[in-house]
Amino acid sequence: MTQERRGRGRPARKAAEEGPKARERILQAARAEFAERGYDKTTMRGIARAAGVDAALVHHYFGTKDDVFAAAIEVSFEPAMVIPQILGQGAAGIGERLARFLIGIWENPATRAPLLAIIRSALTHEAAAKVLRGFVLRHLLERVAGELDVPDPQFRAELAASHMVGIVILRYVIRVEPMASADPEEIIRIVAPTLQRYLTEPDPVGPGGPATEG
Amino acid sequence: MTQERRGRGRPARKAAEEGPKARERILQAARAEFAERGYDKTTMRGIARAAGVDAALVHHYFGTKDDVFAAAIEVSFEPAMVIPQILGQGAAGIGERLARFLIGIWENPATRAPLLAIIRSALTHEAAAKVLRGFVLRHLLERVAGELDVPDPQFRAELAASHMVGIVILRYVIRVEPMASADPEEIIRIVAPTLQRYLTEPDPVGPGGPATEG
Repeated sequence: MTQERRGRGRPARKAAEEGPKARERILQAARAEFAERGYDKTTMRGIARAAGVDAALVHHYFGTKDDVFAAAIEVSFEPAMVIPQILGQGAAGIGERLARFLIGIWENPATRAPLLAIIRSALTHEAAAKVLRGFVLRHLLERVAGELDVPDPQFRAELAASHMVGIVILRYVIRVEPMASADPEEIIRIVAPTLQRYLTEPDPVGPGGPATEG
Repeated sequence: MTQERRGRGRPARKAAEEGPKARERILQAARAEFAERGYDKTTMRGIARAAGVDAALVHHYFGTKDDVFAAAIEVSFEPAMVIPQILGQGAAGIGERLARFLIGIWENPATRAPLLAIIRSALTHEAAAKVLRGFVLRHLLERVAGELDVPDPQFRAELAASHMVGIVILRYVIRVEPMASADPEEIIRIVAPTLQRYLTEPDPVGPGGPATEG
């Protein structure tokens, strides 16, 4: 797996600097740098230093800082892995599987740190927000939406996402009590039926919801 | 209303620098500064300059930068005004009134800018997050919770808040489509029954929600 690949005219490098392992090491370093320093203060040079490679190699694999950020996001979410896991078992229980998956990646400290960096960056920098819109939303929400048999599937997927984004922010970012210390299973139990309604009911309000007036 | 009030031993000031009007002008300047520069780059001196007063007067009225931030938040939300408006008419329709109020303040550009600054600051700076936890959540959510006749009222209020926070972030901060361009009335129609369930049903899952499995 550590094949030595050399670009035409590029100088010879140590085997450790090349191939899939270097790419993965750059992504790990990028996630750590974005998490620690934020979007603004993270540089291509800093990522290269943390990964133990030439800055030129980071450019070679990814292009710009936005591209590294996008790749780091994509690996965090791994949509190719996630989508079948959530959608593969059909519409029944999709609300609970989605809630369980999202709470799960936030309960895990290894995935929480880079996700926190992504959220913070996207909320404070237009460049990072654009990357988030383009990649995560297109790759994650559009694929979820593509599997839904409801009107306005993309809007439905966003309604479900909005609830989970808010839970994440209150629980893991602002850490407001009692939400921050609540049993994850209790949160999943409560939000799952809401997500289910949004994702699978012909009218997202649901057939059995209480009237809002009277 | 422009009574001249002088502290003992403090030098005489222009009438315009003192009294309720100066306090209000400082708060307006603070909201503009926080909105434009973010939490980190806003200084007491900068707020004073924008308000046309001495930095000492800002300290005199508010204390620290955190205190100015807290006061600016509080005025944005005006809980004393808001709570009766949302809760005063009883449990029926509370979900819709809450959704309508929150969408309303975000649809209005005058209130949107300072709120955006608050959210961005709270998500990226622990000091600002602490202020948000302490003031908004205690003053706003605890008062809402105090009116609710359900188990764990504070948790219920946070569940409702989480959904609205997520909607705000997708629609107004990240601006993801179609959420960003959706008719506000359609969003209110859809989220109101969810908020209603969370705030007033004995079990927040609701009596008539679809089963998540099967």
